[in-house]
Amino acid sequence: MAASLRLRAAASGFWYWSGRRRAAGLTEVCSRSMASKTPVGFIGLGNMGNPMAKNLMKHGYPLIIYDVFPDACKEFQEAGEQVVSSPADVAEKADRIITMLPTSDNAVEAYSGANGILKKVKKGSLLIDSSTIDPSVSKELAKEVEKMGAVFMDAPVSGGVGAARSGNLTFMVGGVEDEFAAAQELLGCMGSSVLYCGAVGTGQAAKICNNMLLAISMIGTAEAMNLGIRLGLDPKLLAKILNMSSGRCWSSDTYNPVPGVMDGVPSANNYQGGFGTTLMAKDLGLAQDSATNTKSPILLGSLAHQIYRMMCAKGYSKKDFSSVFQYLREEETF
Amino acid sequence: MAASLRLRAAASGFWYWSGRRRAAGLTEVCSRSMASKTPVGFIGLGNMGNPMAKNLMKHGYPLIIYDVFPDACKEFQEAGEQVVSSPADVAEKADRIITMLPTSDNAVEAYSGANGILKKVKKGSLLIDSSTIDPSVSKELAKEVEKMGAVFMDAPVSGGVGAARSGNLTFMVGGVEDEFAAAQELLGCMGSSVLYCGAVGTGQAAKICNNMLLAISMIGTAEAMNLGIRLGLDPKLLAKILNMSSGRCWSSDTYNPVPGVMDGVPSANNYQGGFGTTLMAKDLGLAQDSATNTKSPILLGSLAHQIYRMMCAKGYSKKDFSSVFQYLREEETF
Amino acid sequence: MAASLRLRAAASGFWYWSGRRRAAGLTEVCSRSMASKTPVGFIGLGNMGNPMAKNLMKHGYPLIIYDVFPDACKEFQEAGEQVVSSPADVAEKADRIITMLPTSDNAVEAYSGANGILKKVKKGSLLIDSSTIDPSVSKELAKEVEKMGAVFMDAPVSGGVGAARSGNLTFMVGGVEDEFAAAQELLGCMGSSVLYCGAVGTGQAAKICNNMLLAISMIGTAEAMNLGIRLGLDPKLLAKILNMSSGRCWSSDTYNPVPGVMDGVPSANNYQGGFGTTLMAKDLGLAQDSATNTKSPILLGSLAHQIYRMMCAKGYSKKDFSSVFQYLREEETF
Amino acid sequence: MAASLRLRAAASGFWYWSGRRRAAGLTEVCSRSMASKTPVGFIGLGNMGNPMAKNLMKHGYPLIIYDVFPDACKEFQEAGEQVVSSPADVAEKADRIITMLPTSDNAVEAYSGANGILKKVKKGSLLIDSSTIDPSVSKELAKEVEKMGAVFMDAPVSGGVGAARSGNLTFMVGGVEDEFAAAQELLGCMGSSVLYCGAVGTGQAAKICNNMLLAISMIGTAEAMNLGIRLGLDPKLLAKILNMSSGRCWSSDTYNPVPGVMDGVPSANNYQGGFGTTLMAKDLGLAQDSATNTKSPILLGSLAHQIYRMMCAKGYSKKDFSSVFQYLREEETF
Repeated sequence: MAASLRLRAAASGFWYWSGRRRAAGLTEVCSRSMASKTPVGFIGLGNMGNPMAKNLMKHGYPLIIYDVFPDACKEFQEAGEQVVSSPADVAEKADRIITMLPTSDNAVEAYSGANGILKKVKKGSLLIDSSTIDPSVSKELAKEVEKMGAVFMDAPVSGGVGAARSGNLTFMVGGVEDEFAAAQELLGCMGSSVLYCGAVGTGQAAKICNNMLLAISMIGTAEAMNLGIRLGLDPKLLAKILNMSSGRCWSSDTYNPVPGVMDGVPSANNYQGGFGTTLMAKDLGLAQDSATNTKSPILLGSLAHQIYRMMCAKGYSKKDFSSVFQYLREEETF
Repeated sequence: MAASLRLRAAASGFWYWSGRRRAAGLTEVCSRSMASKTPVGFIGLGNMGNPMAKNLMKHGYPLIIYDVFPDACKEFQEAGEQVVSSPADVAEKADRIITMLPTSDNAVEAYSGANGILKKVKKGSLLIDSSTIDPSVSKELAKEVEKMGAVFMDAPVSGGVGAARSGNLTFMVGGVEDEFAAAQELLGCMGSSVLYCGAVGTGQAAKICNNMLLAISMIGTAEAMNLGIRLGLDPKLLAKILNMSSGRCWSSDTYNPVPGVMDGVPSANNYQGGFGTTLMAKDLGLAQDSATNTKSPILLGSLAHQIYRMMCAKGYSKKDFSSVFQYLREEETF
Repeated sequence: MAASLRLRAAASGFWYWSGRRRAAGLTEVCSRSMASKTPVGFIGLGNMGNPMAKNLMKHGYPLIIYDVFPDACKEFQEAGEQVVSSPADVAEKADRIITMLPTSDNAVEAYSGANGILKKVKKGSLLIDSSTIDPSVSKELAKEVEKMGAVFMDAPVSGGVGAARSGNLTFMVGGVEDEFAAAQELLGCMGSSVLYCGAVGTGQAAKICNNMLLAISMIGTAEAMNLGIRLGLDPKLLAKILNMSSGRCWSSDTYNPVPGVMDGVPSANNYQGGFGTTLMAKDLGLAQDSATNTKSPILLGSLAHQIYRMMCAKGYSKKDFSSVFQYLREEETF
Repeated sequence: MAASLRLRAAASGFWYWSGRRRAAGLTEVCSRSMASKTPVGFIGLGNMGNPMAKNLMKHGYPLIIYDVFPDACKEFQEAGEQVVSSPADVAEKADRIITMLPTSDNAVEAYSGANGILKKVKKGSLLIDSSTIDPSVSKELAKEVEKMGAVFMDAPVSGGVGAARSGNLTFMVGGVEDEFAAAQELLGCMGSSVLYCGAVGTGQAAKICNNMLLAISMIGTAEAMNLGIRLGLDPKLLAKILNMSSGRCWSSDTYNPVPGVMDGVPSANNYQGGFGTTLMAKDLGLAQDSATNTKSPILLGSLAHQIYRMMCAKGYSKKDFSSVFQYLREEETF
């Protein structure tokens, strides 16, 4: 039923970018059926899952909630949402489920564990995993879900806790294209961009590739800025030159890692907030695994991974990942 | 005299971007004194120097020409310019000289050699070195030039032979700020952007830092695109995702290294034209030297250097530097 | 029974090096009970498994054989050994089983698959996995085996097909110490060194760490020799100097990668034979995975992995891993 | 005269290893002519030069001393040696001179400076530079020295202050082979091994290549030991396994970087003493320069350079270079 509805609503274009349409489109969609919305399951109410679930509530979706830590569910229970005691129970009561979990192992447990979703999943259900995990694990899960007659999509996010709160996440979605519109209906309540990437696993792949390139260009920017400063260049001037030249990148023009060059970025605030070094190290670990599995050489990506690994051990784990500039700049003392 | 004129014309702002002003300003300046222009020396008429010198001629500057290869001077002699037999002779006849040479050693020879510029340089002369060399060599040359009562500026270019022909080079200029306007008068005839970077050597520093970051982000883009493709992503789609995300960089959005993603770039033309791998390896060697001298860590820069070094040995020396994608993508065969 | 025998025979020392003792000891053990030996299961009769199984036969052990490729079993069937149709069937007929498989996935399938060993394993059985796989997979398998009341040990080998044929492999063994002597009884028939490394997974760990260091020092030797040669040193002389200095390593003094420096090594024979680049790349992939899992920085190990990855794609996959010298030395052409 | 004597004494073999012969041979030589020895110049009385010069004194050579820091000469003046006020003055009074200076620039100044050796060097003089510098600088100096009719040899040392005191340095000597015996006469008083490496510059080349390989295998050993420990291996056991396997190297079997594995090495003494991280970083900088000049790829060497560069900035500059283990092992905290 829900499934057939979704099928009818399915878009057909190759490339979807819901960002522009949202102000009008999604609000309309969301208000249209406010009264009759069927419940959505949500598993994993951590730092990211909590505000994401709240945005679904704001859009009128009743929730079926589960988290391994009961405390994480309290807030939702008090708000009148239904809390159950296992992923299987979520699957019994909801035919659309979002999972938002920290690791591949957690995701496997939530789906295939003794009390996992697959134990009670209904045919035609739509299961969307927004965890950032190994794309090969996403593919495995999709196979098992498919065997049960349900649909699996991977939809990892970019954007941190702030974007989760304000509903401005970007979702990169992999899965059967016919189901994309159905996924978009829910994801559009939590994010400002919902991008279709291709078959199952490509959502993870897109995120991993982007973050690997991000890490590389951030470290590169930090190295280039540090070298330039030591060679006598003014940091602001150097940033300007790079940004009007071929060295330009997001890390140099939008998120410059050198204190004093830009306002409103973590480097202007002692590298607090932003995207933590630990998270970057985790994503680079996934890139590394994917590259090893596919025999893809990633010389710089691999070294970037090791650099963030080192930083985690040197007290930078909770700082924004642009703190690599600070890590590199420390002066030799003689 | 020429020197005092230059001093009077000196600009005072911190940051100069001549690009916008040129259409009106420089043409005016250039046509204004067409009849009375004093000769400009030009040493080094190679692939880059040749079209640069011609642009000076177009703007009405009589030239005093020297190159170690007499053949390189013929064309200019036939056009009526004066060819002399040593850098010293150039210095005797011109109080503004541009040098455009391949290596640090060549530059040292042209200035400090047995028949070098310094043997006959006149007080108040303006010597502009557009070679890309080690900034510490630029500083050494500046000291020697200063001892003779003349002025030295480093002004390496970005942009290749095409930009040299069309007068669209970017000059990154280091030297005494009061002399910048005088340098700009000449450099503006050969380039569309003339950027003041700070003290002597900072022109080189800016170029080196930019090109190091460029190399890093190009290799990073190639690695991310290759990994994504192997994980099942469509290359055009992946490029779009990167370009609207934090992985965005000049190498991904303007000069994408993957054939089929963009038109009009070397990757669309079997990596012909563009900026050769050998030249990138040379610039990375300079970055490496500068980093070693200043004890600046460049982990990715250093590895990028080695990668381009390897490529030179594997038949990529004359291909555009974006061919690193091709270098990485080769498939394992079993 | 066999299990209790093993328990009684268990050694107690911390460090075991069976190499020296073998000539007398093991032969004695092996001949002692020639008549009454109980059958040993062997799963995986590939390039390595085939000669290993034959050495068990030579020592009088009747075999229960299984391989996914029936052809691999023919030779053993003709020799009178019993061939069965699944790992489960092997487990039904033998209480000591050796597995020798190419990947972690293959090992998981052989143990935990639909017709895996665990389906019919007898209590007290000794299961020895000589595959080179991820130590975390070994630990998982050990847990499952333990639940069935049996014993699992990881015992990867070093030494190639030649050593497998001549019974000169080195086994690095992880598992319960009390069971080591029982494992040693079998492994000693196939190898000249059987080393006890600690708890389950440490056999894999030891092998992975050794091979990672080997890869690093081999590439380092290749780089140092190549640099020295380009700086004018005679290769033989340079090797001598390194070998009497602090640069000395197995790769420089026993397996020098430069043709002409040593006899009887792959570099003297166009890099044929030896330890293939593909296998080294595989082991470095395992090192990478283990390092990522344990958050251990491996800067050089990670780069070594990428270098062997690149070599596999450039036509070196079947050459000995010392061919990295050839890969690096190619000359730039201008 | 001195020169002709040297020429007559010149050895002819291709390979020289004075270590074994010394106990008898050199002592004999040294005592033989105790009374009539001509003075030897010594420039650079730092941490290394001081004990080296003293060993020459012990062997009966009168010294002509110079150091830019007059205090460094006091001790020698008080001991009756002649202190002069410039390298030129040394050259005026001695036809055999040893230089022991920290950098390429210092060496150039001592030879070619305003008051350098070359200003007053006598024909036939033997000038031995034991500084560790860029081999291309050694070659330049050799050319200039040759023009003056004198002989230049590069003879960098391995072994630290302890070896300098006890006369157990190793000298790696480059230069005209006919002069090697003459150099050996002096160097044998300060070192236990004097190795002939080939033409001028090859002494430096040999040292640089050895130290680069040393740095690589030390970091590799630290990575492998750290990874193994995190995977559950006992460090002493792992070291044993590596040392009997293909991972064996000087850094694992003679100078193990893990505290508790060996006695009498810097890792057993909080990384005090030994070969400082700063010095290793300097040598790797020379390797990097030489590799860039000769277009030799050094992927691991280059990364090793950057790692030691980072360590210098993180408080490890005065610790032994094996402290890279400590640098890598720091734990991530969450």
